[in-house]
Amino acid sequence: MIRDIATTPEPPYYAVIFTSTRTDNDEGYKETSERMLNIAVEQPDYLGVESVRESGLGITVSYWKAAEAIRTWKRQVEHMEAQRKGREIWYRSYKIRVCKIEREYGYDNGS
Amino acid sequence: MIRDIATTPEPPYYAVIFTSTRTDNDEGYKETSERMLNIAVEQPDYLGVESVRESGLGITVSYWKAAEAIRTWKRQVEHMEAQRKGREIWYRSYKIRVCKIEREYGYDNGS
Repeated sequence: MIRDIATTPEPPYYAVIFTSTRTDNDEGYKETSERMLNIAVEQPDYLGVESVRESGLGITVSYWKAAEAIRTWKRQVEHMEAQRKGREIWYRSYKIRVCKIEREYGYDNGS
Repeated sequence: MIRDIATTPEPPYYAVIFTSTRTDNDEGYKETSERMLNIAVEQPDYLGVESVRESGLGITVSYWKAAEAIRTWKRQVEHMEAQRKGREIWYRSYKIRVCKIEREYGYDNGS
């Protein structure tokens, strides 16, 4: 699981907001999630990811240096197979929003 | 709590991705969260929100029709007070990313 705020560069850069609701079928879900994360990390221009799920609703935000990297990742062969299984088995519904990060700011209490 | 994928219009529109880690201090947190949600909904050009927290990491994405609406919401008086308390009491760290949604697609199995 991802337990940290992603470290990202100065904007502009890109993000994919993946919001989903799950079915009750967990078959192969955990393994595929972990595998997808492992190969996403190896994609060109991948920056980081944040992911949380609670009571059925999940939000995963992945960050990318360029819009083209997102298109390439969407078409990656093993990822396409995972997307197909996602619709058939694991997800009741999802929405994918592709966006350009224009500005950011933050806070860290240092503890 | 927000348990659904937000219904949003055709892009372009805007989003604020708020990723945070909490302190152990819950004093007033729930009440203020609910109050902020209630007044956000009343802001001009507010579209919707998705929010999930798990094991300390939280992701809240709010959607807005225009970039200016995000600036107005950031400066709303009661919200500014909540932001101050957030830094003092509830959040160990957070990052706020403002972005323009360029395209989206989704899936719904209809169940």
